[in-house]
Amino acid sequence: MSALLPHHDGSTLYVSNLAPQLGETVRVRLRVPERYGPLVAVRTRSNPDHEPEWTDAASLGVADGWEWWEAPVTVHNPRHGYRWVLQHADGRVEWLNQSGIHTIETLDAEDFALVAHPAPPAWLYDAVMYQVFPDRFARSAQADAHPTPGWAIAAEWTDPVDPVNPGRSQQFYGGDLDGVRERLDHLIDLGVNLLYLTPVFPAESNHRYNATSFHDVDPLLGGDDAFVRLVEAAHERGIRVIGDLTSNHSGDTHEWFLAAYGHPGAPEEEFYYFTDDGNTEYESWLGYESLPKFNWASHELRRRFIEGAGSVVAKWLEPPYSTDGWRIDVANMTGRLGAVDLNADVRRLLRRTMLEINPDTILLGESTNDAVSDLQGDGWHGAMTYPSFTRPVWGWLSEPEGTPYLTYDGETETEPWFFTQPIGGIPRYTARQFVDAVVRFTAGIPWRVRLGNMQPLDTHDTARFATNAAPGTIPVAVGLSMTLPGLPVVFAGDEFGLTGADGESSRTPMPWGTEDEPATAERLALYRDLVGLRRAHPALATGGLRWLHVDDETVVFVRESADESVLVLATRGDADVELPPGSLPRAAEGVDVFGDAMLATAPDGAAVLSAEGPAFAVWTLPGVAIPAPAV
Amino acid sequence: MSALLPHHDGSTLYVSNLAPQLGETVRVRLRVPERYGPLVAVRTRSNPDHEPEWTDAASLGVADGWEWWEAPVTVHNPRHGYRWVLQHADGRVEWLNQSGIHTIETLDAEDFALVAHPAPPAWLYDAVMYQVFPDRFARSAQADAHPTPGWAIAAEWTDPVDPVNPGRSQQFYGGDLDGVRERLDHLIDLGVNLLYLTPVFPAESNHRYNATSFHDVDPLLGGDDAFVRLVEAAHERGIRVIGDLTSNHSGDTHEWFLAAYGHPGAPEEEFYYFTDDGNTEYESWLGYESLPKFNWASHELRRRFIEGAGSVVAKWLEPPYSTDGWRIDVANMTGRLGAVDLNADVRRLLRRTMLEINPDTILLGESTNDAVSDLQGDGWHGAMTYPSFTRPVWGWLSEPEGTPYLTYDGETETEPWFFTQPIGGIPRYTARQFVDAVVRFTAGIPWRVRLGNMQPLDTHDTARFATNAAPGTIPVAVGLSMTLPGLPVVFAGDEFGLTGADGESSRTPMPWGTEDEPATAERLALYRDLVGLRRAHPALATGGLRWLHVDDETVVFVRESADESVLVLATRGDADVELPPGSLPRAAEGVDVFGDAMLATAPDGAAVLSAEGPAFAVWTLPGVAIPAPAV
Repeated sequence: MSALLPHHDGSTLYVSNLAPQLGETVRVRLRVPERYGPLVAVRTRSNPDHEPEWTDAASLGVADGWEWWEAPVTVHNPRHGYRWVLQHADGRVEWLNQSGIHTIETLDAEDFALVAHPAPPAWLYDAVMYQVFPDRFARSAQADAHPTPGWAIAAEWTDPVDPVNPGRSQQFYGGDLDGVRERLDHLIDLGVNLLYLTPVFPAESNHRYNATSFHDVDPLLGGDDAFVRLVEAAHERGIRVIGDLTSNHSGDTHEWFLAAYGHPGAPEEEFYYFTDDGNTEYESWLGYESLPKFNWASHELRRRFIEGAGSVVAKWLEPPYSTDGWRIDVANMTGRLGAVDLNADVRRLLRRTMLEINPDTILLGESTNDAVSDLQGDGWHGAMTYPSFTRPVWGWLSEPEGTPYLTYDGETETEPWFFTQPIGGIPRYTARQFVDAVVRFTAGIPWRVRLGNMQPLDTHDTARFATNAAPGTIPVAVGLSMTLPGLPVVFAGDEFGLTGADGESSRTPMPWGTEDEPATAERLALYRDLVGLRRAHPALATGGLRWLHVDDETVVFVRESADESVLVLATRGDADVELPPGSLPRAAEGVDVFGDAMLATAPDGAAVLSAEGPAFAVWTLPGVAIPAPAV
Repeated sequence: MSALLPHHDGSTLYVSNLAPQLGETVRVRLRVPERYGPLVAVRTRSNPDHEPEWTDAASLGVADGWEWWEAPVTVHNPRHGYRWVLQHADGRVEWLNQSGIHTIETLDAEDFALVAHPAPPAWLYDAVMYQVFPDRFARSAQADAHPTPGWAIAAEWTDPVDPVNPGRSQQFYGGDLDGVRERLDHLIDLGVNLLYLTPVFPAESNHRYNATSFHDVDPLLGGDDAFVRLVEAAHERGIRVIGDLTSNHSGDTHEWFLAAYGHPGAPEEEFYYFTDDGNTEYESWLGYESLPKFNWASHELRRRFIEGAGSVVAKWLEPPYSTDGWRIDVANMTGRLGAVDLNADVRRLLRRTMLEINPDTILLGESTNDAVSDLQGDGWHGAMTYPSFTRPVWGWLSEPEGTPYLTYDGETETEPWFFTQPIGGIPRYTARQFVDAVVRFTAGIPWRVRLGNMQPLDTHDTARFATNAAPGTIPVAVGLSMTLPGLPVVFAGDEFGLTGADGESSRTPMPWGTEDEPATAERLALYRDLVGLRRAHPALATGGLRWLHVDDETVVFVRESADESVLVLATRGDADVELPPGSLPRAAEGVDVFGDAMLATAPDGAAVLSAEGPAFAVWTLPGVAIPAPAV
């Protein structure tokens, strides 16, 4: 990976229209280092209706040592792939796609892609998400008035989390939505502006992923009124709020399931996959009988749940609830069972309904592994997904040894938790492998969707990153989540330095009142600074991405726009990097805005970056100049 | 690429059942060089309904220096992907998928895959295809009785092909089906056993891809009776016959189109995409008005053309026509237009009809570029596709300079034709790039489908490979087409040494009577030998594939089965290759069966292969031993 390679990505430096309609012609641009050629031709190759189509690029001229080429691409399919072809004077041919530069032909799946489906609202790209698990965030005074429900095992706020069944899902701390509302100033203080609440519907568990209804907010959380109060208070502060829906399954105490279970002929029986005549046996999520799987062939289920005004999806977007979107649980499995695959139907219908009710909303799908096939822009604006950022960061910046912890059945597990992959704990990646993994798992996703992919260090479903972080790497990891293309996510508690050995024990109640303890204060300041950095520099949200240097310890990249560029150094060990002259034309004008590292420019124009690792450092630079096209 | 790496592929050495049903458990096996570990665990990772599932492999023991592992995989989806995970004692983790061994996580798209759709007939894998373009193959005495049709420009058999319009599509040599029948002994002599006829329906062109009807064979070819005579004669000789259907479009003189054109309200108007009220404007193939595009949303079109008994597809499979399958023209674009994509519907319905009428038939789709997305086993048994074999062979074994030729408009083109890619002629690949391209464009295709992919050096749509072949490389290219996994194809005339600078001028009339000219006799013998080799050694059809050595000049691979293995050396330059000890355990027992090269074994077990290039050489070896599982 060299810093002096032809470059294109989906950002506005290179694409004239990120939200084209079918039939529109978009201008796409390629930049090539001035002495890379000579080139006799530069072309694009699209594949409308799966048949190649080529357009010629014209040179726009040279600026700052880079020649820019521009070509028209007419958007023919809703996901319109294209690649670049560079024809050298010496006969060599090179192809450029989302996985990089190639000397042999490339795969359709890794083409750059324009998306003609309706674009998400622009605010998605300004967002920094804050994830709250309601039972564990904060208790309001009102919460004390609620009796502990029959299924629950009451816990005091300072009790340790019990990761063993039955406490695992029944231990109940009693956090509520007024509690969240009362703590909104904390979100403001951090700088986050998008609140993602895991489910708030009534359910007989602390996680509420086994809803009994989608029509009301759990009274234990304060009910519909508390929800409205929270959303209104958040909106007043400029914070948007999204909810969490389980489209793959309901709880086995859900009103629809109860109406169908044991009741052949009930209208709701077609909502599930009953496998016996008496409606008592059925398909469920990974075989858990408490989570019966939805059958999306049912038009009545579609109507009640996701299709049009009057559906569950619509209701919560409308006033007075006015939610700003949804995160969809188990989106990856939704509508899929053996030979049946209705996933595309569901995600498209869901989004269509949202567009009808309020297009200024976002839709994210959980897809915890390779999500490429579902992320072509026809439904999900992005995914809660781990292989393209979270797991690579863990692989690079963790220590292999963990602290033993208890599993759901009370067994002691000595290997660190790693996303339930039975591979002997956390793999050990170099920085190079980190970058290879990021590239591999984003190369198949259109740029616009990549920007919407969640970029958490951890979530309510994972151990916390800090649990196994190598010394000094927290700023590197948080920094990467805020500076690589994608939606940054803070899982509530990470900013307090919480740890948690698996998805259960990471659901620690928030340690309010510890903010002034030195280690916590330092961690909070780190988050404030890095969230602030992201929000202050739009190039970190939507700017292009060029990898400038990768070795076993160190990554250097730049996010670029016409207005400003942001240079990032992330290193686990000591770094001493020289970028070749011309690769970062205006490095001499770099302004240090985060971290403790040095940027210098050699007389020949080479930029030199050095730091004692682990380190994360950021500089701002002037924006990128594109030569004006000849009139 | 080393010869001492863990290996798995879709062949019967490694997969217990290549045609499983949904719900069946298949045993999959991995072989690992004995000193590769120590490994603490070997597992499979599947992704049923897009959620990971893992199974543990057990060691079967060691045979010939390789440890074999076996794990169960239960087939949950019609295309059920899986990969291997190797956990080393030192903490390293490796993943194995169809693109090779990886130290970072891998993409779903490159998983090995079991396919639960109905399998093609076994004879597909014994087949060597011979492609005939009827107008140019042979004239029977009966052909002389037909008058030249009004649209045609009559040519004598020895006239040069006219590549310029209007001759390009109207020059008419008058080959017919009785002519083909009279030359079946030539096919027998070559050893081919599957005759693929480009279209035989009536049409106002020499290529007949603009059919006027699908209900009768063109009288100029001898009509239905000649077709029946040909199929019966072929079948008597053990040669199967497949036809060619245009599912993307018809001709503008097709009976359906004429019924619809200018006739709003006609039942056939929904068969096409008319864009005006008067049914005079319409979508067509790449904008050619003579080729109106079918609209597969029409159920009546489906019924008449591809669905069930009574459809066109069914008619020609039934007696007395008894065709053995179809090659589908422009399969890649079929059913695709802008936001519409009905391709999967069409290919699945087509195959369902064929299964109803005669399951002992094959279905191949033309898809001349990256065909991965359409080749998951749900319809096409394979593709006429170029990026996974044909173009890589050309890239490796061609010379860059070509002979100028005339294009359709009479312009002189000086760059060699290369599949209409405007990249300055034929790219220059090393052997390494050849292998990289083969791997890249097959890694996304289930093994079973890969075996059905056509492997031509050229077709009626391309220049002929020999036109630009580097001196001495014809045996290498033909040899590779017969020995790599895939369906070998001989385009009629290649065995006579014909050349042709583009897809038109390659449609040269067969030079019958020249068989005894020395160069022709030598070329014919080469084809006879290599076709014979393929047919004599089933491991070349269905055996596993291990790449043993790749450098810039030379490729060595082995096709393996339990009964026999076949070692192949292909080189453009001189070769002197040492395979590490253990990589080919029984090399000392190799028997030279083709070519002029040396295979020797060093005292330490290393196999040494050497040849003066260009060279293509083949040895047979004993089959592969799998340790018997402990009882």
